[in-house]
Amino acid sequence: MTPTRAALLITGSEILLGRIQDQNSAYLAQQLDEQGIDLTRIVIVSDESDAISTGLADLLQDDVGMVITSGGLGPTHDDRTVEAIARVSGRPLVVDEATRLQIAAITRRFAEQRGIDHGVFAAGDEKQAMIPRGASVLAPVGTAPGLVVSVNKQVVVVLPGPPHELRQMWPRAMAHPRVAALTTAASDRYTIRLYEAPESRVADAFAEVGGDENGTRTTICAGRGEVEVVVRSGSANPGQGAALASRLRERLAKYVYSTEATPLAEIVIRELRQRRLTLALAESCTGGGVAAALTRIAGASDVVLGGLVVYADDAKRDLLGIDPRVLAEHGAVSAACAAAMARAVRERLHASIGVSVTGIAGPGGATPTKPVGLVFLHATSDACDLPLERHFPGPRGVVQDWAVTAALQLTRRIAVGEDHT
Amino acid sequence: MTPTRAALLITGSEILLGRIQDQNSAYLAQQLDEQGIDLTRIVIVSDESDAISTGLADLLQDDVGMVITSGGLGPTHDDRTVEAIARVSGRPLVVDEATRLQIAAITRRFAEQRGIDHGVFAAGDEKQAMIPRGASVLAPVGTAPGLVVSVNKQVVVVLPGPPHELRQMWPRAMAHPRVAALTTAASDRYTIRLYEAPESRVADAFAEVGGDENGTRTTICAGRGEVEVVVRSGSANPGQGAALASRLRERLAKYVYSTEATPLAEIVIRELRQRRLTLALAESCTGGGVAAALTRIAGASDVVLGGLVVYADDAKRDLLGIDPRVLAEHGAVSAACAAAMARAVRERLHASIGVSVTGIAGPGGATPTKPVGLVFLHATSDACDLPLERHFPGPRGVVQDWAVTAALQLTRRIAVGEDHT
Repeated sequence: MTPTRAALLITGSEILLGRIQDQNSAYLAQQLDEQGIDLTRIVIVSDESDAISTGLADLLQDDVGMVITSGGLGPTHDDRTVEAIARVSGRPLVVDEATRLQIAAITRRFAEQRGIDHGVFAAGDEKQAMIPRGASVLAPVGTAPGLVVSVNKQVVVVLPGPPHELRQMWPRAMAHPRVAALTTAASDRYTIRLYEAPESRVADAFAEVGGDENGTRTTICAGRGEVEVVVRSGSANPGQGAALASRLRERLAKYVYSTEATPLAEIVIRELRQRRLTLALAESCTGGGVAAALTRIAGASDVVLGGLVVYADDAKRDLLGIDPRVLAEHGAVSAACAAAMARAVRERLHASIGVSVTGIAGPGGATPTKPVGLVFLHATSDACDLPLERHFPGPRGVVQDWAVTAALQLTRRIAVGEDHT
Repeated sequence: MTPTRAALLITGSEILLGRIQDQNSAYLAQQLDEQGIDLTRIVIVSDESDAISTGLADLLQDDVGMVITSGGLGPTHDDRTVEAIARVSGRPLVVDEATRLQIAAITRRFAEQRGIDHGVFAAGDEKQAMIPRGASVLAPVGTAPGLVVSVNKQVVVVLPGPPHELRQMWPRAMAHPRVAALTTAASDRYTIRLYEAPESRVADAFAEVGGDENGTRTTICAGRGEVEVVVRSGSANPGQGAALASRLRERLAKYVYSTEATPLAEIVIRELRQRRLTLALAESCTGGGVAAALTRIAGASDVVLGGLVVYADDAKRDLLGIDPRVLAEHGAVSAACAAAMARAVRERLHASIGVSVTGIAGPGGATPTKPVGLVFLHATSDACDLPLERHFPGPRGVVQDWAVTAALQLTRRIAVGEDHT
């Protein structure tokens, strides 16, 4: 069965003005992929009613079965998505009384909690309860209801803009019969994740094994020292991807660290938990970024005992008890200091594993022998020590991101027992 | 002078498949806004040559003076942007010898550093040196050169996909005469940033002061407890925004904390630095997120001494010396524990200000009296103590994001001396 094609219409002048970053398209893209729906285009337009209706009409002219919109459902004057959809679908706007009561109950609770007069919400409640006649309503997560609207043979799914509202509403949209009918079994896919493989080496390997054949579709995506390869079988030739992926895995074996889509931080937490290992972190140039990445994952508290952000030299001495001679002789950005930091934090927190990062994120702080981007990492356990020195290119944020990834990879390696020295 | 209209064409199958999030459109949107160029549409298409050329042709049919593309310039098989642009512009592809030599010099250095045979790069070097005849070349940041291509009266600017390459190349594009000619003085704009103002209260205030008039354009954008209002004057009526913004500021005065676009973390660093204050952090449920947000800012090391991520109760006791009785009587998620954490970390690091966060980010860890989302914060200095209790709605990541913002706001408040108790 040929997959349904879909498009996204994201509304928001604040996105076009660079005030906020769109987060919804990344989430919806992943969800559609899992449902075997082929996302062909994402379009971002302003909050103007004309921009929304033109954007929607353009997308409906493409050969797509579904358009999903996000944003423009709030109570304020610049929330105009529903009005635009009414226009494009040729359906008049009507107040849905059941929805209005549902919204009023939500705003009443809110008003009571904050001690505000509920009357100020009345106009917003009614505005948010206006729907194109005949549309199905998806119950609100915040105060904005979603919609499923048929436009000829196509379906338009209308979702709110705030990312957590959109995510909570998405399953309700998927459960709607008009939407559920569009999903197909996702084509088989094979993920290969590589660390510190040159992208050109991956491209060469791909060419050497023959490249895409029989409808396979391969994407190669690099960032933060990682390369992710995803091979998909064509819908006409299921199973073709498996052989290609297996040849690639073989050729690039020394770089492969995972064959699943799970985020790296989640892999690290899982590997630690499976082995009942605990982790302590000492961070300098990443400033808490490694700890923050790990603690985003639910259940991190089982394995991450804590960490120290020892940004200043005094903090390295006072909080970690780093020998001032190490700092004086080698400097804070050195293999010796990284090793001392990892060992000290492990000991202080009684953890199975200690991991440290110290480096020069820039733009200031470089010396003739220690350029911006120079980073020392260290992982230590009862069994072994893994030191690592890297020079990451790019501005401050890039150096920090690469250093966080390197620290997570080092943690993974020591947890699973790779490269014991 | 009417501002030039522009559109972005972002290419990347990995974006449509939800494997990575597009970061370039947010950056370019902000840059264009600063140049007085009006971004009307962002379109994201796959790496397929057809998708790129259709996307580009569609955008060129809109009334835009410039289309900026990002991505698809790499050495691998799925980098097809230049080919598509050659097709749409009707210019044949030719190898630009000067560019090929420039790229070869870069890949030679890279090969030498890694001890790889330079020969493996030859095909990629030549592929990346192919340009539509007559196009201007922007010198590469990585290995991919950018392009400025005239298509009739419109101009297409071709930039690489990796965000740090794109950001470094952007000034080179802006300096190109064809592009520089499109910039205008940006219209005057007025930013008002509010913390913990209900969005409906902001909408009401906007209606009360008369809403947009005489071509002003106002956006209201909420997230993480913040609302940002930006008022712009219409190009025909400069100065009209000032009066509207001033009326709004007056009405919402108690929520206003800033009238500039600077990120909150940068404001906090600046306020601390101006007063020669130093900061120490103790984080539980945010897991290093506050420290990471602050240390993203260059020069954070002047004011952020360090922090502790005391995720486990033992860490709170061992690293911070929190009295076990506080933990036993009040629990780790309590106002008493937050106060003890802030005071202890301030003392340990000899900082002017100590700030702490402890809460239940979820999904686990809730009790009947302590639901997911309950967060206690505390800021302490010689002069005063600021305790704060909040209940943030939403899943783990949202609770953490809101808690990080709340901690940054609390730090700002104690630094500038608001609300001393």
